[in-house]
Amino acid sequence: MELAARVLDGDKTACARLISLVENESPGYTDALKALYHRADDTYVIGITGPPGAGKSTLTDKLVKLLADSGERVGVLAIDPTSPFSRGAILGDRIRMAAVSGNPNVFIRSMGSRGHLGGLSKHTANAAVVLSAYGCSYIFVETVGVGQSEIDIAGMADTTVMVLAPGLGDDIQAIKAGVMEIGDAFAINKADKEGAGKTYRETLASLDFKTDWDFKPPVCQTAAETGEGVEKLLENIMAHKTYLYNSGELNAKRARRKAAHMRDIVRDRLTRRIERLIASKADVLENGADPYTLADELIKERFQ
Amino acid sequence: MELAARVLDGDKTACARLISLVENESPGYTDALKALYHRADDTYVIGITGPPGAGKSTLTDKLVKLLADSGERVGVLAIDPTSPFSRGAILGDRIRMAAVSGNPNVFIRSMGSRGHLGGLSKHTANAAVVLSAYGCSYIFVETVGVGQSEIDIAGMADTTVMVLAPGLGDDIQAIKAGVMEIGDAFAINKADKEGAGKTYRETLASLDFKTDWDFKPPVCQTAAETGEGVEKLLENIMAHKTYLYNSGELNAKRARRKAAHMRDIVRDRLTRRIERLIASKADVLENGADPYTLADELIKERFQ
Repeated sequence: MELAARVLDGDKTACARLISLVENESPGYTDALKALYHRADDTYVIGITGPPGAGKSTLTDKLVKLLADSGERVGVLAIDPTSPFSRGAILGDRIRMAAVSGNPNVFIRSMGSRGHLGGLSKHTANAAVVLSAYGCSYIFVETVGVGQSEIDIAGMADTTVMVLAPGLGDDIQAIKAGVMEIGDAFAINKADKEGAGKTYRETLASLDFKTDWDFKPPVCQTAAETGEGVEKLLENIMAHKTYLYNSGELNAKRARRKAAHMRDIVRDRLTRRIERLIASKADVLENGADPYTLADELIKERFQ
Repeated sequence: MELAARVLDGDKTACARLISLVENESPGYTDALKALYHRADDTYVIGITGPPGAGKSTLTDKLVKLLADSGERVGVLAIDPTSPFSRGAILGDRIRMAAVSGNPNVFIRSMGSRGHLGGLSKHTANAAVVLSAYGCSYIFVETVGVGQSEIDIAGMADTTVMVLAPGLGDDIQAIKAGVMEIGDAFAINKADKEGAGKTYRETLASLDFKTDWDFKPPVCQTAAETGEGVEKLLENIMAHKTYLYNSGELNAKRARRKAAHMRDIVRDRLTRRIERLIASKADVLENGADPYTLADELIKERFQ
């Protein structure tokens, strides 16, 4: 049986292998994705993001366990920072998910971000298509780091959970302010740590700045290590899910996701073409014109 | 006198105004940049990066003060995380550089990262062209956060300084491993803090993994608050500068920078075109084909 068909049949090994083929951009990977796309059912995508050190991985583990124990098939795409030198994922599966990785209802995959250090992997959306066809009813996409990743993940996820924690330094507070609008639900993790109450109150206060919420993001305190507050967080995620279904916002969100996916494919292919063109123009670059004029010429010459 | 000419004449107000026009993409900004590009002299660009909370801003302040006191004109581009909602810079000048902002030899600018949260601003390279024409012999580009910014900054800077500090949490250690190859010089800041010696030794050890260095990045301990070790760090930066000049690597690096700048301009313009095309195809997205097939069609139709 071919790989795509085996994925649809719920074959976990085939699922892992197809994701590898996608990551390596092996011949035929786009055809496999095309075959699976319309078979990808109503999978709900949950993004988990927040600054380094907030405890995202442990919190994801606990959420995954709750859903898997209730009989759901759950996929996890953990985006790892990649060394631009070695091109390998750094965290890998080494320090992840001891508690859930043996669960037959759970599929976990670490993806290196390959030149998008800290952001989403280029193939995160494609891997989600595979997991969806494999039969996952929920997919968690977890990103380490601050930066572009939050914006990317908000574009891809149905519900984005922003994980914060006390005592992570000054500029993290500023970053928090910047990403405040991205979270559909907030978890103030490390609730047992000094300053957790203050972070909790600050988060609530900063959400009060905006008054015209269609769905005001719920905030809860968690202690991922002990599991405290994790059920409440899952309830909050489900409340957002219900809101999206009832308001019709879910369809709009998924149309945007599809548009973003398409845009990324087009942009990736054009970027490769640009790189090749620039490489072929190395002589022009070494002397002469400024980059603005060179860009004008290149676009005129090759992109009509 | 027109703005570009006033910048070349060393007018600080004109310099600030032109950078604003660039950031807002006001009419004629590309022409001004074209006029200034070839007047941009031999400015040396120093990138300052590292995880949140490492003390990059304070360390930058101290380095800038040392150079400015020795008579150099110094520019600082501090990239701030931007709220995708408000589109404004968050840190602004509020908490920055009290010690050097009054110095006539120093030009400081906070730039919002505008949809590239935590990364470089789209216009960082353009602002550097303006500062160079204005007469800065050194430009510091400082990024908050981990993520794509490190890769971007390494592509833009002549010397990249990676600032680390003890006690910043577990996944920061992993991120460090990922960006180890990006630093041309390392500062282990907060040398007075518990664990600083350990972070220092770990950094040295991880650099020993690679044996074929053309220039092995020097590592030093600093305490930016007191200024301890900052002179040594500046010496290390200058050692890398000397290496780049003597090896001829500097010219290669700047050719790559110009190519990257050109690529960014082309990609930005094509991305806008793609966005418009996709917006005009909203009806196609709502039903029918998968994003892979739609991308195929779009490229065939509009990009030959």
